[in-house]
Formats: sequence, structure tokens, C-alpha cells
Amino acid sequence: MRNPQLNAKGELRHLLTIEGLPREILLQILDTAKSFLGVTEREVKKVPLLRGKSVFNLFFEPSTRTRTTFEIAAKRLSADVVNLAISTSSQTKGETLLDTVDNLSAMHADMFVVRHASSGAPFLIAGHVKPHVHVVNAGDGRHAHPTQGLLDAYTIRHYKQDFTRLSVAIVGDILHSRVARSLIHALTTLGTPDVRVIGPQTLLPTGVERLGVSVHHDMAAGLRDVDVIVMLRLQNERMRGPLLPSAGEFFKAYGLTPEKLALAKPDAIVMHPGPMNRGVEIDSSVADGAQAVILPQVTFGIAVRMAVMSILAGASA
Amino acid sequence: MRNPQLNAKGELRHLLTIEGLPREILLQILDTAKSFLGVTEREVKKVPLLRGKSVFNLFFEPSTRTRTTFEIAAKRLSADVVNLAISTSSQTKGETLLDTVDNLSAMHADMFVVRHASSGAPFLIAGHVKPHVHVVNAGDGRHAHPTQGLLDAYTIRHYKQDFTRLSVAIVGDILHSRVARSLIHALTTLGTPDVRVIGPQTLLPTGVERLGVSVHHDMAAGLRDVDVIVMLRLQNERMRGPLLPSAGEFFKAYGLTPEKLALAKPDAIVMHPGPMNRGVEIDSSVADGAQAVILPQVTFGIAVRMAVMSILAGASA
Amino acid sequence: MRNPQLNAKGELRHLLTIEGLPREILLQILDTAKSFLGVTEREVKKVPLLRGKSVFNLFFEPSTRTRTTFEIAAKRLSADVVNLAISTSSQTKGETLLDTVDNLSAMHADMFVVRHASSGAPFLIAGHVKPHVHVVNAGDGRHAHPTQGLLDAYTIRHYKQDFTRLSVAIVGDILHSRVARSLIHALTTLGTPDVRVIGPQTLLPTGVERLGVSVHHDMAAGLRDVDVIVMLRLQNERMRGPLLPSAGEFFKAYGLTPEKLALAKPDAIVMHPGPMNRGVEIDSSVADGAQAVILPQVTFGIAVRMAVMSILAGASA
Repeated sequence: MRNPQLNAKGELRHLLTIEGLPREILLQILDTAKSFLGVTEREVKKVPLLRGKSVFNLFFEPSTRTRTTFEIAAKRLSADVVNLAISTSSQTKGETLLDTVDNLSAMHADMFVVRHASSGAPFLIAGHVKPHVHVVNAGDGRHAHPTQGLLDAYTIRHYKQDFTRLSVAIVGDILHSRVARSLIHALTTLGTPDVRVIGPQTLLPTGVERLGVSVHHDMAAGLRDVDVIVMLRLQNERMRGPLLPSAGEFFKAYGLTPEKLALAKPDAIVMHPGPMNRGVEIDSSVADGAQAVILPQVTFGIAVRMAVMSILAGASA
Repeated sequence: MRNPQLNAKGELRHLLTIEGLPREILLQILDTAKSFLGVTEREVKKVPLLRGKSVFNLFFEPSTRTRTTFEIAAKRLSADVVNLAISTSSQTKGETLLDTVDNLSAMHADMFVVRHASSGAPFLIAGHVKPHVHVVNAGDGRHAHPTQGLLDAYTIRHYKQDFTRLSVAIVGDILHSRVARSLIHALTTLGTPDVRVIGPQTLLPTGVERLGVSVHHDMAAGLRDVDVIVMLRLQNERMRGPLLPSAGEFFKAYGLTPEKLALAKPDAIVMHPGPMNRGVEIDSSVADGAQAVILPQVTFGIAVRMAVMSILAGASA
Repeated sequence: MRNPQLNAKGELRHLLTIEGLPREILLQILDTAKSFLGVTEREVKKVPLLRGKSVFNLFFEPSTRTRTTFEIAAKRLSADVVNLAISTSSQTKGETLLDTVDNLSAMHADMFVVRHASSGAPFLIAGHVKPHVHVVNAGDGRHAHPTQGLLDAYTIRHYKQDFTRLSVAIVGDILHSRVARSLIHALTTLGTPDVRVIGPQTLLPTGVERLGVSVHHDMAAGLRDVDVIVMLRLQNERMRGPLLPSAGEFFKAYGLTPEKLALAKPDAIVMHPGPMNRGVEIDSSVADGAQAVILPQVTFGIAVRMAVMSILAGASA
């Protein structure tokens, strides 16, 4: 069975998950993103690659931050962008997801950027749209957030070059994190030999080892000599939930402090997908410290999204 | 008294209602829309007709779907579009409707697309703005939704060519439907000899016959040998209201099933303004069937709105 | 200590408050605005000065009206505009204001237009962003609303030319009004010899005289022979609060009626920042009368905002 993200020529026509994508595609995205970094730093930050194309930001779950990055990326490619927050709209009128998509497709949409609380919704949409329409998953449930995984990979490559010599630790609530899942797939596909997940038993998915990672419950062991530390955001609802004693105790065990950071390699970088809970998963002195590359992640994220959109727009059905 | 929608030369300067518009104006819109259909299918879907013009989507009643169609149409004409959802804004600050409009006009608006829960609000605005400002009614109360009526007419002409030989049935909640009212005016103006409305007594306006339609309470009689069936959306609040026994009973009597569809001509087309309530006013097999032209309606709707906007922008005061 | 709004060359790089700005800067803005007035009246209302620049409307407090004026001004300068209503977004996720700003800066924002309920928030942001990023205060708490003060000054200059011969009365709720504060600073900087504030004791800040204005509690005395009357909006919450007996009594004492207007010079102009409460602070016959210049204020406001944005964009760090 063909990967539904690729066309007959093996080109990327939807970006739904990093899982199962060939290494070459990932590298193509990272290389293309690099060429766009210059664009975002120019006086006139626009290229005409998507001129006249209509990109719909289809957000069934609110996320101003992610929506904004896609909106900016699309506008810098000269596309027309329409933002749709759907929770307050047709869905409440009882229209089905696919009717909504059909309807927007009939307005000659060229690309859907989809955020949805249900895992798999972007796949459902990609399987339904006409051949010339492209779908980008901007986060679906606990499943995947591929552009975040790619921008994380971009950041790691930018600072550490060669994936095949790296130790990477991902810390915190792995269980509910589509960011972690997408990054793990990116790293293993790109040949990272040592990927570790660190967190309390209650926040680790059972069988996570099968993804090709090692499991740690202890920061001291998990962070030892790593090149890259990726801290995950602890959702507010978890802090009050039954999976954790309290935000304070979580910080004591898994929050990244200067002391814990010192366990990693001296030139280790610290990443975070944002928004950060300072004092919960990360100490402010680390977040603002010399090893943090959290803001460059955001900058790379625009370039990565421009890359994905322009590659998809160039792929035939 | 002159039609307030026309200027001294008889050109369209506002589109408020189809009622009373000359046949030539309707045909001009349909013909212009046809020329824009090609644009929406091109690689670069833009024409510079409204470049530098400011179009304000003034939605006093939320409607993501309709707002989106106007936004896309305006952007494809290269206009600058500003979306204003007014319920949460000035109106709650106690500002009057006309003060809001004056204020936006003073920002050099060129066109207002107005949606309002009160019938007549777009007329009030059109009667108030400066000569160079154009107003499009995007749905006012139960009164009119002229661009929907026009896109319905466009769809019928596209599939059936000659209005003067057609039987058209409009089914469901006629009483509360501005869509039905606008379509009836379009069809009678364009010379359709046989327009039927079908629905329960409680959902038909008294005296609807005066609009030039025949009234049916029974689907079997009403659908017999028609060329076109237009199903209306049943608003959720009606289903729970005193005018109807239940959604299930409504479907039994007036829902369009394959059996009922078989009463129409074999090549009859099925239309619906969307969003559909599958299983309430229309069976899924009909909605997705070969006779349904519901998605083409949406596509034609963009072209019709581009046509209306470009014709208005070209009309002098 | 250098004014944080100016760069080393004395050029404007942020617009945070009118207080402390040199007269030459104010005149530069007013002169530049004049050159843009023509643009907003052209067929194609666009100039390419900010093409490829990203302007973020960062509204931590909702204000459709003000946000719209900045959005239109930026679009007429050909900028890419991203609207962010933050109350419902990251802030509720516990992210700090500066993390939000850092994050958006990392997307290569060129300009932030900031509205915030807390006085000083735009200063905090301006002190934090990278040198090439510009900040415009679009209203912070009770503190300042400099573009409103500038458009008021523009309006006065348009109708009365020479500030150094004028008497200006500002009427109503001075205490809570950032509009009043900004206008007072503009007028005194521009050399207006006679600025009066008129209102009940409870709605005047203690020590307001130190701003260079005279204080009146009585309209008859305060309005006598003035050239300009600026009515302030009475916020709804004040009308029901302990500072005022009732909206009706306020109107009796301080509402601008034709009789009270007759106390001013015969050619006095009447201004209001909008939205108006007709029958509370201003009588409808005055609001719609020959001396009102309330709608021209709005038109000038677009030109003034275009001027501010283009001047900032041209200033180096």
C-alpha cells in the first residue's frame, strides 16, 4: 500500500505525519527551509511561489500561536490566506467534517492546514479531497504535529549538524505529546542513534520503546552526556489531574534547572515547543540562558512551514 | 420612485434584494459570473479589478460560511478585505448601526457586505452611505439573500439553460427562509413558468402564492415531473419548536429520499444552500448522489459574488 | 536619559506616548499624514512603503474599531497584517507577555501595534524587542493613546491652522481617559495657550493642572469662546458606578447641547473620539450638526496611522 502522503512519483503531496516518510523527503524539507531562512530576513520578506493560491487555516481546535506561524508562512509565499475557527461555526450547525471540507474545496481551496482535537482528522480529510488539494496536519489530538517535529529537527541540524552522532533527550509528558511523537519519528528516520524519553511512569505511553527510544524515569541518568534536551510543555489540566502529584513536585523531579542541565554535554542545546510554563517544566534561568535555542526554533518554524507549503504546492497528484 | 439599487443610468449600485430588479440586470450578473468561473480555476486565481479597494465584511450575525465566500471573492478581485464581527464590538458599546457605518465609511470603505439579523438593515445602510460606497446584502433576517438567489439561478441555468421551460420545486421551511424568497424572485423575473413551494402549513408564509408560486403540502404531488428540486435547511431551533412535531417526522414527510426524488424528472437536479442536515431534510444517498449539484453551487457562488462586486464597483453613483 | 521612543539620531522608533516628544516630531507626523490623505482618496489606495513587512496587531484588550484603523492603515502601506486577539490565547495558557512578544518577534515581526488594559505594557514591550522592531501604543490602560492624540491634533490643525492662538476645551471623564491625556500633551507641545478640562470633580484626576490645563466644573464658564470642543466618551461602567449620579444627570450638566455649544466661538468645531453615546455626552443634533468634525477625525486617523507606521519603518535602531 502506497504512503497516502506521497504521489506516484514519490513526491510529498500531503504532510500528515513524519512516521513512514522517507529520509530523503525529510532532508528535502530541511534543505528547502534553509533556502527560505534568507527570505524571512530580507527587507521584503515575500516570494511569489504561492501567488493566487488559496490556503485555508482550518482550526477545529484553537491555537493562535500555530495558526499565526502558518498564516505568516503562507503570506510570505504570497498566498491568499483564509482563517477559519470552526468550533463556533458550521460544526455547531451539525454539518459533518467532510461536508465542511467539501464545501471549502468547492471554493477552489488549494491547501488546507488542519488542526483538530481528534487524532486522524487530517488523514480523513486528505483521503477525501480532490487530487490537486494539499493537506498539512497542524496537530491532531495526541497523534502528530509534523511541522513541529521538522522544525525541531531543523534546529538540531542547525546547531549539531550530523544526526548520526547525537544523543537527544525528550523530557516530560510524552504520553499526551504529539510533539514528542513527531520528533521521535524525525530523529530515528534521520539516523539519530540515541533518543531517550524521560518522565514519570504515568506520563509515558506503554510500549514507547518500540518507537526506537530508551526510557528513563530519572533525570540524572537520562540527561547524562546528551547533546540536545527537548523539554515538553506540561498542560495545565495535567497539573491538576490524577497523573501527577503537583506542579511543584513535577518541577523538583523533571523541571530543567541549571544543576540538571550541567549533567548534559557542556555544549548541549535546550529546546521547548512553547508556550513555556516557567517554573514548571523549565527554570527561567535555563529558558533565558545561553544554551536555550527556543526562539530560533520559532524562526526556523516559519522557514520549515514555507518549505512544506511550497513543496506540496509543487507536487502533482 | 426609483429603485434604490439602481443609479440614474439604471446600473446596479447596491445589491439588496432581487425583488424588483430588471431581468437584464440579473442576466448581466449571471453572464459576468460565467466569465469569472475561469479565473477561479486558473493557477493564479486573481484579477486586479478591485485592487486598492477596501471591502468591509460587516457581519452583525455570525456566518463563517457566507463570510468566507465573500472574503475569497473579494481577495480574488485583489481587494483589501477587513472582516468585522460586530456583535462583540461597537454595538455592545451602545453605538448605533448608522454611526458604525459612518465611522467605517470615513475610513474610505468602498463596499460593505452586510449580514444582519434584522430584515431591512442593508437598505438602511444603503440609504445612508455616500454615493461612491456600495452595499451588498449578505442575508438580512427572513427577508433576502440575493447572492444566494443568484447563485441558485446560475446553477439552474448552468444545468438547464432555459428558465422559460422549467418546473422548480422549493421544499421545506419556506416561512423563515430568505434563500427561498430570493430564489423565487429570481426565478419569476427570469421567466420560470412553474415554481412550487412544498412544506407543512406551519412553515409556509400566508399569501405566498402572491409571489407567483403554487403551494403544495404533499411531496408526491409537488415533486412530480419537476426539473429542479431546491431543499432548504431546517434550522435546529425549528426542530425543537412548536411549528414541527420532530425532525424524524419532518424527514418522513419532507426529507428528500431516493424514492421521492424518483417522482421528479429523471434528469432533475437537487440543490441545497448548505449546511445540510443529513437525515433531516435530505437523505445522504441523495446528497451524495449523481443528481446533486450542491458543491457546484458553492463554486458558482464565488463567481457570482465576484460578478456582483465587480459590477457594483464599476457603477457610478 | 534618552527618550526610549527616539534613536540616537533623534528619530522616532517607537510611538508610546506623546508626553516628552519634541515638537518637530509631532509636526513631522502631521505633515507626513497630510501627504497620505491623498492616497486614501485615490482609486487605488495603496503605496508600497511597507511591502513585505509584517505588522502584528497585538490586542490584549478588544477594540474592533481601533484595530480596524491600524489594519487598514497597514494594508494601504502594503504590509502583511496579522491580527492577534490575545485574551483568548497564550495568555490564558500562562505564558508571560514578554514570552509572547519574543515568540512573535522570532517570526520576524517588523512592527507591533499594542493595545493593553495595563498602563505601561507597550513600554515594557518596546524596552524588550530587538532594535529593528517598532512598537506603536494603540492604547494602554488610562495612560496614553498617542495616535488618537495625534489625529485630534491633525483635525484641529486642519480646521484651525495655528495652534498658538487657540482655546480648546476637553469635556467629560478626564480621569479615565487616555485620549484626553494624549491630546493634552499634543496641544501643549504644539504651543496651544489655552487648554481647559471640564468635568465633575469625581471624573478629574487630582493635580491635572500640572499638565498645563485649566480646570472647570461648569460648562458655561469652560466653553466660553473656545475654538475647539473635544467631547469624551462616558464609559458604560461609569454610568452605573459611584462616581456619577446617572447618565441623565450627566447629560444635563455636561452633555453638549446646541445651547451649550452656542457659548463657544461661532466657528468652533466639535470633536469626539467615538463611539458616541448620543444623549449621554452629546446631543444628536450636535453630533450630526454643521460644527461636528467627528467623521473627518476618523479619516484623518487613517492617514495619521499610515504616517506613524511609515516614519517608524524608516527609522534605524
